[in-house]
Amino acid sequence: MGRADASMGAMIVKDERGLMEVDGYPLTDLAREWGTPLYVYSKRQIEADATRLKKALGAHFDRFHISYALKANSNPHIVKILKDLGLGADCSSPAEALLAARMGFPTEKSIYTGNFESPQDLKVPLKNRMTINLDDHARAQNPFEDSPLPPVLSFRINPGIGRGGFEGIITGGADAKFGIPYEKCGEAYAWAKSLGIDRFGIHMMTGSNILNPFYFAEITGKLLSIIETHLCPLGIELEFINIGGGLGLPYSPEEKELDVEEVFRLVADVFHPKVERLSIGHPALAIEPGRYLVGRAGLLLSTVTHVKESYRTYMGLDSGMNTLLRPSLYGAYHPIHLDGKSQTNAVSPYWVCGQVCENSDLHPKARDLETPTPGDLAVMEYAGAYGFAMSSHYNGRPRPAEVLITEDGPELIREREEDGDIFLRVPHFSLNAEGPK
Amino acid sequence: MGRADASMGAMIVKDERGLMEVDGYPLTDLAREWGTPLYVYSKRQIEADATRLKKALGAHFDRFHISYALKANSNPHIVKILKDLGLGADCSSPAEALLAARMGFPTEKSIYTGNFESPQDLKVPLKNRMTINLDDHARAQNPFEDSPLPPVLSFRINPGIGRGGFEGIITGGADAKFGIPYEKCGEAYAWAKSLGIDRFGIHMMTGSNILNPFYFAEITGKLLSIIETHLCPLGIELEFINIGGGLGLPYSPEEKELDVEEVFRLVADVFHPKVERLSIGHPALAIEPGRYLVGRAGLLLSTVTHVKESYRTYMGLDSGMNTLLRPSLYGAYHPIHLDGKSQTNAVSPYWVCGQVCENSDLHPKARDLETPTPGDLAVMEYAGAYGFAMSSHYNGRPRPAEVLITEDGPELIREREEDGDIFLRVPHFSLNAEGPK
Repeated sequence: MGRADASMGAMIVKDERGLMEVDGYPLTDLAREWGTPLYVYSKRQIEADATRLKKALGAHFDRFHISYALKANSNPHIVKILKDLGLGADCSSPAEALLAARMGFPTEKSIYTGNFESPQDLKVPLKNRMTINLDDHARAQNPFEDSPLPPVLSFRINPGIGRGGFEGIITGGADAKFGIPYEKCGEAYAWAKSLGIDRFGIHMMTGSNILNPFYFAEITGKLLSIIETHLCPLGIELEFINIGGGLGLPYSPEEKELDVEEVFRLVADVFHPKVERLSIGHPALAIEPGRYLVGRAGLLLSTVTHVKESYRTYMGLDSGMNTLLRPSLYGAYHPIHLDGKSQTNAVSPYWVCGQVCENSDLHPKARDLETPTPGDLAVMEYAGAYGFAMSSHYNGRPRPAEVLITEDGPELIREREEDGDIFLRVPHFSLNAEGPK
Repeated sequence: MGRADASMGAMIVKDERGLMEVDGYPLTDLAREWGTPLYVYSKRQIEADATRLKKALGAHFDRFHISYALKANSNPHIVKILKDLGLGADCSSPAEALLAARMGFPTEKSIYTGNFESPQDLKVPLKNRMTINLDDHARAQNPFEDSPLPPVLSFRINPGIGRGGFEGIITGGADAKFGIPYEKCGEAYAWAKSLGIDRFGIHMMTGSNILNPFYFAEITGKLLSIIETHLCPLGIELEFINIGGGLGLPYSPEEKELDVEEVFRLVADVFHPKVERLSIGHPALAIEPGRYLVGRAGLLLSTVTHVKESYRTYMGLDSGMNTLLRPSLYGAYHPIHLDGKSQTNAVSPYWVCGQVCENSDLHPKARDLETPTPGDLAVMEYAGAYGFAMSSHYNGRPRPAEVLITEDGPELIREREEDGDIFLRVPHFSLNAEGPK
């Protein structure tokens, strides 16, 4: 009865009236039950994307690690899906490291990559015996002075190149704050050996949301050259070579799906011959995707609040930059659809915005939509990564709820906040009660 | 003993060792007691800035309203200071309207300005008898269908011009989502009259963080022309003419302090002769500043976590885009000082960043600083507005604490979050306890 719409991510199925469903559950039902704005995730889709990635790596590598970057979406119910698939955790703060430990990720599969971390920041991952990936070695204080040495230590290398969908998410190159300049990485490993550390990895994360499959092979080649020049003279053996995340999603209609099988075939073509030639042990290929694993599997449901004919025509939603920051921060494009439209009526251009009192709160590009009516359900795609994770209370709006569709049906995995939650840790004040103020 | 440093906002006083204090309280003591990152506010400074503004308006207007824009900083303890000074409240969401009512703002001094608001959004301000400032009149549904009519109704007019420190905060002009195109405002008032509403205001908010004093007179002139052309033929009398907020702060050293006395002298020169000539009653001049009232009075204290020599030299802080979004979102400049530096040593350029794993998490422009050491206290100025208000849990970082210095000394007005707070409303999960997961 339903059919996948070619204009949409595979996750959404539409019936003949244009009503959308995910995994057999109509989106209108979810919005009715839990209200909007509402993040909706599909466990099936997360599993499909993770499985595709595991197969792509497995086809070309005997040994590989996939560590899920918790920063993309740290809802424990989402994290658990990826843990249950056998992935590791990539953590960037003490809370994420605590979460990974609490969720039962095997510590040898978990990696902590901070940047400008304090000795205090490293305490949780060290206590939990995670692999530590240091952003710098030249430190005022030995970061392991008061802690056990990490079982495996790696360094994040800045290879001097970087790429990203937007300037802000380029994480390698001369202008990036991340990593150790590659010319100095020999120094870093020599320092680590002098501390008594004897198990090593190497790491690089140069960009984000990349859709060019050749890029990953290119940075792998660059990293292997760095290893040859700077690590081989030290006799360092590597347990893994981590080329970071950065696997992109086709957010906008002009963008083409990244073929991950091709990505890792190309990476393997560079990796294997070179690794065999170098005396660096038998390193696994490691990656740390976030967006790729959960981005497609998430939708943001919003209600149309008002349509305004001004100098341009605007469609207002009850979700804004407080709910999903990416359009405001990066000018990022998310496909937006209206539920229950016949797809036979004429479309016209609408600028889509939220309710925040600044003009940043606007989606890029006018969208061709059938005439919207207040109360209509708007569906934003690719909202599973860096969505809720970057949400705020800006303009005094409580944060949305999150629902996960599993084999048992839709389940609320984060309750909607109430107005009073905005003032939760304010002493001597309650929004609702009559108390001291 | 202490002296005000000309390079700093008047709020900070430095002793001969370069140690900084606010209102007699050393910043190191505050950081030691409550940790970092920490927002610190001065009640004295808020009162000084508000009083300066009241005097500037009072010098030129018999009747004026100042409504504090709660969105800039909605901590109830901050809001209370402005309420106690006799200001009104400018609200942009139901939670802000509830807060204003709860804090005891007289409702006739409170205004609700939404945009793309749903009928549901208007329920709280209508119930509390606030002035409603509508962003549009052409609605699918009468917004007052299920509610009492507002005592006073105003419309936000888009005058076709706008200005702002950054593109995202321009809130008027043909590209802005806000307001009713001025050509249509006669329609709006005619519609309101047809509903039985007989008390009116008019509103315009065209830009933010403006430092050019002539701008405010320019927009006032434009708004008065719009009134003459479109409202006078309808015989509308106005209780207020609200020219919005937008009073800027000199965030960067090249920027010059806005002389608010001059601003309102210039506005008065345009306002009075024209208002006397038109038959529109005796409107008060209304404004709705947020930034001007609380921006200067807030500092963000951070600890230096690490200094890195990479392709550039970076100073890392324990506050990032999760704590203060403005640098990442707008490229906004905040002055950054190190506490306890002698000011006699040589300075060199440092790029200042937080700990978030993306390169957006970087302050614009290299800062000339004396050599920092991990553990040093870094002080960011002009952080009182749109600081905590836009904070998030991004990268799994709990939100900071807030301290207010009053005549009774420093007082904690928001407790620091703990790691577990990031997962507060997640069912069947607790970060700390052993429970179901």
